[in-house]
Amino acid sequence: MTEMDSSRHAPRVAILLYDGFTALDAVGPYEVLCRVPDASVVTVAKQAGPVRTDTGALGLVADHALHQVRQVDVLVVPGGGSRGVTAAMEDQETLDWVRGMHEHTTWTTSVCTGALILGAAGLLRGVPATTYWASRSYMETTFGAVCTPGRFVESGKIITAAGVSAGIDMALHLAARLTDERTAQALQLAVEYHPLPPFDTGSPEKAGPELQELALRLIEDAAR
Amino acid sequence: MTEMDSSRHAPRVAILLYDGFTALDAVGPYEVLCRVPDASVVTVAKQAGPVRTDTGALGLVADHALHQVRQVDVLVVPGGGSRGVTAAMEDQETLDWVRGMHEHTTWTTSVCTGALILGAAGLLRGVPATTYWASRSYMETTFGAVCTPGRFVESGKIITAAGVSAGIDMALHLAARLTDERTAQALQLAVEYHPLPPFDTGSPEKAGPELQELALRLIEDAAR
Repeated sequence: MTEMDSSRHAPRVAILLYDGFTALDAVGPYEVLCRVPDASVVTVAKQAGPVRTDTGALGLVADHALHQVRQVDVLVVPGGGSRGVTAAMEDQETLDWVRGMHEHTTWTTSVCTGALILGAAGLLRGVPATTYWASRSYMETTFGAVCTPGRFVESGKIITAAGVSAGIDMALHLAARLTDERTAQALQLAVEYHPLPPFDTGSPEKAGPELQELALRLIEDAAR
Repeated sequence: MTEMDSSRHAPRVAILLYDGFTALDAVGPYEVLCRVPDASVVTVAKQAGPVRTDTGALGLVADHALHQVRQVDVLVVPGGGSRGVTAAMEDQETLDWVRGMHEHTTWTTSVCTGALILGAAGLLRGVPATTYWASRSYMETTFGAVCTPGRFVESGKIITAAGVSAGIDMALHLAARLTDERTAQALQLAVEYHPLPPFDTGSPEKAGPELQELALRLIEDAAR
């Protein structure tokens, strides 16, 4: 059975939420994958109920606790603020769950620093991967991932996306893998994803060192 | 006092949630605006508590009820599925609240079919605006808006964004208005918004009529 065959019918998607996750990391993929034909998307956290984001200013509802979700076709692990991601990386229940899920997934995916959680679960050793721009070398030195350029990197059944908004690009690619190009193209139109950012500073290379420093300070200041 | 002066200090942002809203419409702007220096972002709905999205598969928490939030600098009205938007457009309490907020805002904004709610509140008559690609002519004929091309359209203090993902582009523009270009450029890097969609089908013009039809069918199918 090929990867596409095994998930072509009613793919089940689980999005992991944890205290201090970044909302767009989760919602970008959700918005695309929830409209894959017959797909079901569920949110999962250590405990069912509201989970606050890295800024504390927003709550998303986890509809299931970890122990209630044991097998899905697609796992999405969003990134988060450094405190939230560090806590998730050190939480054995979370790491055990990620490892257990990965055994049965067709696709195991991360957005942004979600890759560090995959790394902490031991899934990235020797694996070409990407993560948030500021965490690339940490991912490589700490978890033995092979940091690879790209908006998202597909390595076997693991797909890691770059920071925050890159989850949208990754999810459209994944939607094509789960269905076909035409359906994924229609999903891109469904979310009117014809991006026209007002600046050209979305990558660290384009932005340069001063904007990198300012970006990290703004993130830190907003993480109350 | 110029518009920039009035909101330069600690801008307060309210995001309206309503049953059947589209998650990314709200979360795209949230993710940018929450990191504007000293900004505070709150979620507001008819009742405080979880609010489900258009697919029913995700809940976001509204931290405040409408009557608890009476004055902010920035109002963000997300779009949603046709049932959700229609219900919001017909709900007098919601429309009264939007009109009341608009009296005091520095910026009143919408994403996607959120423009139809601004229209139903009477704010778009004769105003250059945009909305979800499939709702452009409805917005024009029903509410007298002047449908204008663009990823987002700024008309006085009203900024309307195109569909779903366009809220990210709009919010970066708005961040520059609330602060300065350099800060907004850093915010673009903070969310690593260097978009590289796998296809070039994000606008109806690029996608063509067949993908338009398929996109609308996928949206309808996912709206349970």
